Amino acid sequence: MKQINGGVCAAIGFKASGIHAGIRKNKDKKDLALIVSEKIASAASTYTQNLVKGAPIHVTKANISDGYAQAIICNSGNANTCNANGIEIAEGMCALVEKHTGIKKTDVIVASTGVIGQPLDPTPMANGMEELTKALNPDGSNDAAEAIMTTDLKKKEIAFEFELDGKTCHIGGIAKGSGMIHPNMATMLVFITTDAAISPAMLQKALSADILDSFNMISVDGDTSTNDMVSVLANGMAGNTEITCEDADYNTFCKALSAVTTYLCRNIAKDGEGATKLLECNVCGGKDTKNAKIIAKSVICSSLFKAAMFGADANWGRILCAIGYSGADCDVNKVAVHLESSAGTIHVCQKGSGVDFDEDFAKKVLSEDEIKINITLGDGDGKATAWGCDLTYDYVKINGDYRT
Amino acid sequence: MKQINGGVCAAIGFKASGIHAGIRKNKDKKDLALIVSEKIASAASTYTQNLVKGAPIHVTKANISDGYAQAIICNSGNANTCNANGIEIAEGMCALVEKHTGIKKTDVIVASTGVIGQPLDPTPMANGMEELTKALNPDGSNDAAEAIMTTDLKKKEIAFEFELDGKTCHIGGIAKGSGMIHPNMATMLVFITTDAAISPAMLQKALSADILDSFNMISVDGDTSTNDMVSVLANGMAGNTEITCEDADYNTFCKALSAVTTYLCRNIAKDGEGATKLLECNVCGGKDTKNAKIIAKSVICSSLFKAAMFGADANWGRILCAIGYSGADCDVNKVAVHLESSAGTIHVCQKGSGVDFDEDFAKKVLSEDEIKINITLGDGDGKATAWGCDLTYDYVKINGDYRT
Repeated sequence: MKQINGGVCAAIGFKASGIHAGIRKNKDKKDLALIVSEKIASAASTYTQNLVKGAPIHVTKANISDGYAQAIICNSGNANTCNANGIEIAEGMCALVEKHTGIKKTDVIVASTGVIGQPLDPTPMANGMEELTKALNPDGSNDAAEAIMTTDLKKKEIAFEFELDGKTCHIGGIAKGSGMIHPNMATMLVFITTDAAISPAMLQKALSADILDSFNMISVDGDTSTNDMVSVLANGMAGNTEITCEDADYNTFCKALSAVTTYLCRNIAKDGEGATKLLECNVCGGKDTKNAKIIAKSVICSSLFKAAMFGADANWGRILCAIGYSGADCDVNKVAVHLESSAGTIHVCQKGSGVDFDEDFAKKVLSEDEIKINITLGDGDGKATAWGCDLTYDYVKINGDYRT
Repeated sequence: MKQINGGVCAAIGFKASGIHAGIRKNKDKKDLALIVSEKIASAASTYTQNLVKGAPIHVTKANISDGYAQAIICNSGNANTCNANGIEIAEGMCALVEKHTGIKKTDVIVASTGVIGQPLDPTPMANGMEELTKALNPDGSNDAAEAIMTTDLKKKEIAFEFELDGKTCHIGGIAKGSGMIHPNMATMLVFITTDAAISPAMLQKALSADILDSFNMISVDGDTSTNDMVSVLANGMAGNTEITCEDADYNTFCKALSAVTTYLCRNIAKDGEGATKLLECNVCGGKDTKNAKIIAKSVICSSLFKAAMFGADANWGRILCAIGYSGADCDVNKVAVHLESSAGTIHVCQKGSGVDFDEDFAKKVLSEDEIKINITLGDGDGKATAWGCDLTYDYVKINGDYRT
């Protein structure tokens, strides 16, 4: 498996585009993205677990219920959620795709991201659709990745090449994250494309399994968004024999998918609203995977610990505290904690109590921009990794006045 | 029932004191508090649900297992948690009380608050104990309230007078809160004294019931502390017939207790770390009390909503979002939301969708320092209230470098 360029256009037969259509006031910010496949593709999706769901989620669910789709349209600047006419607008977006590309409106995945509960005027999308369609091109992943960003500071885009059945396959994705990122499904928008041939059922199986260890293990602020969605299109144009069961090819595909999702996870967490640091919490020795996951998530979700990491303060007591209130079954008297970065490792806790360490060196270790919190439990073989970010002044600034 | 002065010394037979013993470096900050009753008192306590518990909690549990206690000692500046010799130190604090007051060490409630996992040197306490004991006086509640503060900006102290069985009774309390405040038991330190006569069993029953609607319904940052404790001493010196069952006197006592705890809750939330605003979320029409509570807590715990309140931004979509991911059973299409303060009320959401409102007036309403979020569901008769605060730059500042 080799990392390549191209994002969602790395796979054969995919084009993408992104433009400023006028949904957002800032003319320098693209706000409408389109991704299309030359051929109809197997489609799989996972959605937010929030009871309040954006209208596009209901429409996407219906459109891919037959297992197939051919295009993805997504706007930023407005979430199209808690709007009385939300379904109508989301369906209208799909109809615009049909009108301008000929792809059936019921083969379109639709997504929106931005403010909740604000009226969404569809006029800019209708007016911009011709330009968006004309702009479709095999190097358009970049533009699409930009158009779906909200408060993200960095584009999130990745692709890999891998082999199936003697054929070269490609898989790539783009993502937007930043705020309202919390374990429990997607927690952001992620679009993945591949030219591997895989049946809709196996594609859904692969995606559903993958998110348990990827997107469900990241948190920026503990808020599960209303619009989160991870969608994959697989158009089969690589020419491999279609994957229809859990064979060796399926496992190879899952590994390639995981490479894409893990990269996007780390980058979503690192680019969390206001974040200056990526936090990676690795738990081993848990009673089982479930308990290890609960602990890893609890630590990266603790506001107190996140603020300490912003201050490069080795306040490991807050890690123990977060383990203790996580609800996981664990023996807190057996906990060991190491903090690690490219500057080195410090051992801060053993058997649940403090270990003497050099405060100056700790400050140096924690001043790097990627920090690993390695927790060793003495309860069993359960392992888990979760990703998060520090809590900063800028998080408050961004969210104290996001809407106006 | 009438509000009176005196805090934990309002009740007959109680004295208190607070001094700077030297646990904290800042000489202007008191760090050791003592409360004593003239007579042995019925004692009740509730403790943090964090698996990691401060050593003082284990010692207090053992000491009041017979239902009685006569003194409370508490230091700030160090939580005495995750220390290998923590139990020894907490027992040593009780022994100091015995040495200087004659009260049996096993009749002492002991508490600590501050940094977790730092060695605690007992020397300053041993050296300060004589001064602390000499300082005991019937007007000492103030000093004790000051001595238990950590990052609190305001003292939290209250007392009420009420009548039982023809006798005038008194009940009062002090509290420290600020950070690591989250639903699930006490979530801070609260000491309450009363001269009402009530059996240990009934006192525990009253306290355990009370915290479900008081201290378990507040959150500052979602972190459940390791040291939280609410303790009540009832010395019976008011002379009423002892309450031994759930009769009318018991109900009167519970009301007086609730007046104390509700006041302290509101003030702990309002003085949350970095807070500029008290948030009170009132839910009605829930499927039942449990579901109403889950929703009220979810809203006041949302980092995104808390940041919006700091910015006086009527971003009600974040309220809907927090209701949706709360895990409560509710019909989100029936939700109505009003935001209220002393400046007026704005109706922002009806049937789960937005309502037009005047943004300027909304800004005015949300610029007050006490905001009510009134949520009306259409699922039943369940009601609940939760208290929290806004998320501010100062929260990050305080917690980014608390330890150093």
